[in-house]
Amino acid sequence: MSESPLGLFDGVLARGPVRSTVDDEAWLLALLNAEAALAGALAAAGVIPAEAAVAIAEACASVRPSMTELGAAAAASGNPVVPLVRLLRTAVPAEVAGYVHKGATSQDILDTAAMLVARRALGPLLADLTAAADLAADLARAHRDTPMAGRTLLRQAQPITFGLKAAGWMVGLDAAAARLATVRTQLPAQLGGATGTWSGLGSPAAAAEVARRFAADLGLAAPVLPWHTMRTPIAELAGALGGVAGVTGKVARDVTLLSQNEVAEVAEDAPGGSSAMAHKRNPVAAISSLAGATQAPGLVATLLAAMIQEHERAAGAWHAEWRPLRELLVTTGSAVSWLRASLTGLHVDSTAMRTNLAELLRTLGTTSIDTGAAAMMVDRALEARALELRRLGGSG
Amino acid sequence: MSESPLGLFDGVLARGPVRSTVDDEAWLLALLNAEAALAGALAAAGVIPAEAAVAIAEACASVRPSMTELGAAAAASGNPVVPLVRLLRTAVPAEVAGYVHKGATSQDILDTAAMLVARRALGPLLADLTAAADLAADLARAHRDTPMAGRTLLRQAQPITFGLKAAGWMVGLDAAAARLATVRTQLPAQLGGATGTWSGLGSPAAAAEVARRFAADLGLAAPVLPWHTMRTPIAELAGALGGVAGVTGKVARDVTLLSQNEVAEVAEDAPGGSSAMAHKRNPVAAISSLAGATQAPGLVATLLAAMIQEHERAAGAWHAEWRPLRELLVTTGSAVSWLRASLTGLHVDSTAMRTNLAELLRTLGTTSIDTGAAAMMVDRALEARALELRRLGGSG
Amino acid sequence: MSESPLGLFDGVLARGPVRSTVDDEAWLLALLNAEAALAGALAAAGVIPAEAAVAIAEACASVRPSMTELGAAAAASGNPVVPLVRLLRTAVPAEVAGYVHKGATSQDILDTAAMLVARRALGPLLADLTAAADLAADLARAHRDTPMAGRTLLRQAQPITFGLKAAGWMVGLDAAAARLATVRTQLPAQLGGATGTWSGLGSPAAAAEVARRFAADLGLAAPVLPWHTMRTPIAELAGALGGVAGVTGKVARDVTLLSQNEVAEVAEDAPGGSSAMAHKRNPVAAISSLAGATQAPGLVATLLAAMIQEHERAAGAWHAEWRPLRELLVTTGSAVSWLRASLTGLHVDSTAMRTNLAELLRTLGTTSIDTGAAAMMVDRALEARALELRRLGGSG
Amino acid sequence: MSESPLGLFDGVLARGPVRSTVDDEAWLLALLNAEAALAGALAAAGVIPAEAAVAIAEACASVRPSMTELGAAAAASGNPVVPLVRLLRTAVPAEVAGYVHKGATSQDILDTAAMLVARRALGPLLADLTAAADLAADLARAHRDTPMAGRTLLRQAQPITFGLKAAGWMVGLDAAAARLATVRTQLPAQLGGATGTWSGLGSPAAAAEVARRFAADLGLAAPVLPWHTMRTPIAELAGALGGVAGVTGKVARDVTLLSQNEVAEVAEDAPGGSSAMAHKRNPVAAISSLAGATQAPGLVATLLAAMIQEHERAAGAWHAEWRPLRELLVTTGSAVSWLRASLTGLHVDSTAMRTNLAELLRTLGTTSIDTGAAAMMVDRALEARALELRRLGGSG
Repeated sequence: MSESPLGLFDGVLARGPVRSTVDDEAWLLALLNAEAALAGALAAAGVIPAEAAVAIAEACASVRPSMTELGAAAAASGNPVVPLVRLLRTAVPAEVAGYVHKGATSQDILDTAAMLVARRALGPLLADLTAAADLAADLARAHRDTPMAGRTLLRQAQPITFGLKAAGWMVGLDAAAARLATVRTQLPAQLGGATGTWSGLGSPAAAAEVARRFAADLGLAAPVLPWHTMRTPIAELAGALGGVAGVTGKVARDVTLLSQNEVAEVAEDAPGGSSAMAHKRNPVAAISSLAGATQAPGLVATLLAAMIQEHERAAGAWHAEWRPLRELLVTTGSAVSWLRASLTGLHVDSTAMRTNLAELLRTLGTTSIDTGAAAMMVDRALEARALELRRLGGSG
Repeated sequence: MSESPLGLFDGVLARGPVRSTVDDEAWLLALLNAEAALAGALAAAGVIPAEAAVAIAEACASVRPSMTELGAAAAASGNPVVPLVRLLRTAVPAEVAGYVHKGATSQDILDTAAMLVARRALGPLLADLTAAADLAADLARAHRDTPMAGRTLLRQAQPITFGLKAAGWMVGLDAAAARLATVRTQLPAQLGGATGTWSGLGSPAAAAEVARRFAADLGLAAPVLPWHTMRTPIAELAGALGGVAGVTGKVARDVTLLSQNEVAEVAEDAPGGSSAMAHKRNPVAAISSLAGATQAPGLVATLLAAMIQEHERAAGAWHAEWRPLRELLVTTGSAVSWLRASLTGLHVDSTAMRTNLAELLRTLGTTSIDTGAAAMMVDRALEARALELRRLGGSG
Repeated sequence: MSESPLGLFDGVLARGPVRSTVDDEAWLLALLNAEAALAGALAAAGVIPAEAAVAIAEACASVRPSMTELGAAAAASGNPVVPLVRLLRTAVPAEVAGYVHKGATSQDILDTAAMLVARRALGPLLADLTAAADLAADLARAHRDTPMAGRTLLRQAQPITFGLKAAGWMVGLDAAAARLATVRTQLPAQLGGATGTWSGLGSPAAAAEVARRFAADLGLAAPVLPWHTMRTPIAELAGALGGVAGVTGKVARDVTLLSQNEVAEVAEDAPGGSSAMAHKRNPVAAISSLAGATQAPGLVATLLAAMIQEHERAAGAWHAEWRPLRELLVTTGSAVSWLRASLTGLHVDSTAMRTNLAELLRTLGTTSIDTGAAAMMVDRALEARALELRRLGGSG
Repeated sequence: MSESPLGLFDGVLARGPVRSTVDDEAWLLALLNAEAALAGALAAAGVIPAEAAVAIAEACASVRPSMTELGAAAAASGNPVVPLVRLLRTAVPAEVAGYVHKGATSQDILDTAAMLVARRALGPLLADLTAAADLAADLARAHRDTPMAGRTLLRQAQPITFGLKAAGWMVGLDAAAARLATVRTQLPAQLGGATGTWSGLGSPAAAAEVARRFAADLGLAAPVLPWHTMRTPIAELAGALGGVAGVTGKVARDVTLLSQNEVAEVAEDAPGGSSAMAHKRNPVAAISSLAGATQAPGLVATLLAAMIQEHERAAGAWHAEWRPLRELLVTTGSAVSWLRASLTGLHVDSTAMRTNLAELLRTLGTTSIDTGAAAMMVDRALEARALELRRLGGSG
């Protein structure tokens, strides 16, 4: 499917690969994937004929519903799965129609699609995040011994090295990435039927088999029970994204502070201009990263608040997740993508660092630069990272 | 400009007139309105030639920029005004190009457009809100004396009348609407230039005149000073919308609770079905209203948190407002539109109310229904409303 | 009643007069005020004997309940009013006991107390806020013509004057204060009885009289209807406090940024030290102000989310307001108090401003300092303020 | 140390063991633990004399600082560690004074104390949470085959068993507990010195040894680098607590809904009364649990928003964590404690369930109760739990 066109603010606030992995097309694809996988699992467990599953899979691969019609029809039933199922039933041979969506409820398909969308979005998001951490690692290595003023409460405090600062960025980005990667592997499929009893999925044993295969086929985790109103998967995803956004914003904040004219210790490779001032060299990437990171906490709060859901399926709180989840993925992804851009080719002015440091040394009444164990700390952090990457079978 | 197509979730989560008043097309129109009004004000104050303003206004009325190109170009400078100004400068005679956007900074245009968009969105939003309050007033009047069980902490407590409950809805909706309407009239234009000194707007006296006319021409308030990093207008708008969402959610919650099978005292006129259960009569409108209302508080928090902005213009916090502001308008508008739908033709089952009340009376060991001053309280609330509507020159 | 002792973090996070106006003692006083006022209003309307009201007022003035016992007993019924009423009934003559709390429900007393507490807290909070605005006005006046670099996106942009920056602070603080002051005058009493029907307050006419006198006696507004589950007053209070916190944080942020060693354009009069570094001159007041302001948006979100309350009284959402409301008052009050401290005696280094500006002028390739209409804008803002203060009968 | 007295709202909003583990006394103890452990680690690594560490440990065990004086003095430096260190230095022999707090910065001690406080609070919190899950497991087992109406969107949908509903509670509570328990084991000590370079902790090798021993001695994790401005530990803790609160609130919501008079399928063992209505049987525990759960998301948002911290130590955002972190622990702990109380002895009325179900069956036009695989699903969930408990070396 083609990428959706950039909106007016998307260049700034929806940068990078995540946007198109969570757009309407991507959601529709995931909904169709879920319906096809359900049919496949039902057939494999002997609940529906194998040919029915083939026909349904073909319909899922070929229907091209109008998004606007789906959206409009969704209003009548409260979600877009109802009209989508209706459409699929007309797209298969009449004798197969009854097997479409068999045993499922709308939320089964929509939650499963949400997890698929999240998994697909987190791939490139984590790639950007790891790339940003790699760039921080490069800076830590290159500037292991570059002294600069450490600053606390926005005042010069004691010397550090830029390598140590960058190593701190690296460790934070890696930690947030590790948590998000773990959450990604645990995203569960959803399958329960109308009230979560598997009542339409054949015998209990068959139903268990359907649920297992459904999840496995989609590459999602198989939960012990349906989680229609027990939203821990959403909470864990939201929390992990909130953590990523926070770390990303911290690094971006440092870049903006170090880019001030009066500090001038770093500069982005491609600073941006202004509609009114030709001379401006704004750290646009870090600023846009901050803009993205700033939007995350409120969205996390919305998703957590929406966990309080009624009985077997909620009266509003479930629907309330869709937009915030998408926004949270987009804004975190944008923040990370911008941070990667900001750190790519970041100019580090070690002379300016020395100059600013000199003022601190004067205040401290010393001429010797005591950066403590900074160099060794950088080495340790880089070694720990290399070890972890080897453990994960990756490379640094 | 044509209405943007419905997205996959828009039927449920972006119902009603607000969505198309805050979409990209609407924003672009507002940005162009702001540029044209600036030129007009500059000409009226004698800062630029009158013919230049005419040419700029014509360009603003005729350019049809590609949203995707604007969005993409916005990434380089951090906002979409920079490429839009570039485009306008090519769309006017060469000798006029220098007068386009004269004296303004991107944020002047974007903030002004945001206020225009908000004002335009709040019109139909307030109309829906007032309509919902009117419906509540009708219910209060019609059921002034219909007794039912009052419920506290989700347990039957003492008798009330349905009219009193509906009057409470009415008063709450009206109060939230009144605050939002006040905020709407106070939305200010933004004009300051690069650092808010009016330095490119001619002499101080001329600049003051430009600022005054700019606001007046757009129907916005003229602020004492530019508010580039002093975001009280955003805070007031966000707070008022949060209040509307809260009240709307409260009423919708009551409708869902009264619609439970075991209570069954009200039913929506067009309840919705289910993909799995033909017999379901879900109060889809109230549920969707709740879904919208639930999303507001987190967005308000984001906008409030983004108020802490640096110096003369912020490094990220300003950009962080755009999506949440749009989302807040959309989700609140949707909640209100759905509530209006929910209350339209709401079926009130006074027999069921009596039946449920009878159980309470048994518990209380009484046969007399004491609804206190409920009837008089309904009358008072309706009279106060009628008075207020007369004061506003409106009609009930 | 004596002031509660400072807690471990209170020096930093609960500075100023608000803390002791919202502590347990202050709440208890307000609860007792409400019970006494209720008795007085009932007597004035002829619903209970005048002597009963006198006895109740005396009991309210003399009981000294153990906070811990109240707190523990509150757990059984869900709020502290139940045991307080029990206590009052034992503190009056036996024949008066039945008139204590007559016609009221716990929430009537607790909500009314909350509004009293808020009104009492907002007095000194507004005084601090106005004092901070006064200090900003002084700075604006004194530095009307002091040039400095204006900074956008944390980069030097165009010249401004420090007076204009300070005038911006002043306008923002005044705007937030004005909104909060308005909300303060509108804080409503709460009186409805068990399900909001005034059923225990005598005849409908008497009940209306009781409600009117109850509010008037306490200096609170009299609402059209009880607002047990229609929480617009809480939303408006929360929104206004959120706005104050945001503006306060913006000014404090500027102070911290201008206090950086590399900028050094302002310094607090009493900067703070460090446990590890004797030379540190941290802008502790501005930092602590930021710490307070940062905590507000999440609390506002909680209060807005808690607006969705069930039927005649909520099953949890009402209780969920108590701590956040207190925290919001404390943290906003602390932020404002610290900002006032930060601006008191703020050292402005116009030489440093000149030096930093010189670099900007070099970048701009000019030697002339164009601060546009800044001086006139300062004058206008000060004049508008003087006018407004005269209108309010105050003095500047 | 003695438990702090209950405040006015604490019986309702700060129930259970967590409150006293996070109060001022508990914080002070943790601060002193951190200073003593630091001295011990410094001595063990040969950086300070062993006798100095002994003297410091003794001082930490014996000083009884006035909380109010600490709190007041904290205002001058921005945190309570500065005056505490001053006090400790006077409490040890003069020649030891210089070894107190050696190499540390205030934030090292305060962050470490925060992690200690969190670890201590999470113990009883997790015990309550596990107990609540055990109770849900008991209900699942006992009501494995008890049919009832499943409800979606607050309307009767299809039959379920109460056992399946309770099993869903159990799985959700367990999942949230598992995440929180993991986070608890990963809470890191903090040690970096003024700017995080370990510059006052001896040679690099010695410093590394100090950091390792410091963490180990306190039972905390040893981080790769100091995390003064890289707040992933706070984010993970906040996210996990938010998840616990959400799950807890969901279960409590179900209890309140099932306790409605019109549903009456469950009743708390000790329902609460009302100040106005003797007959009320409010599910006070579930309601108070909801009140606690509702306050969490906003606090999580505050902690996530505060992650964007400057340079080596933040100008306000760090201080902004203290109160919200405490509040989040208290409110989540209270919610969990109340839920445990609510589920303890919960009365399940299977006859009422049958009666309500009968209405649903009539609507469905059937007499057979199809609960699908519900019974097997309960068995599977219980088995999975037993397996997991065995894996953890626990018992069910």
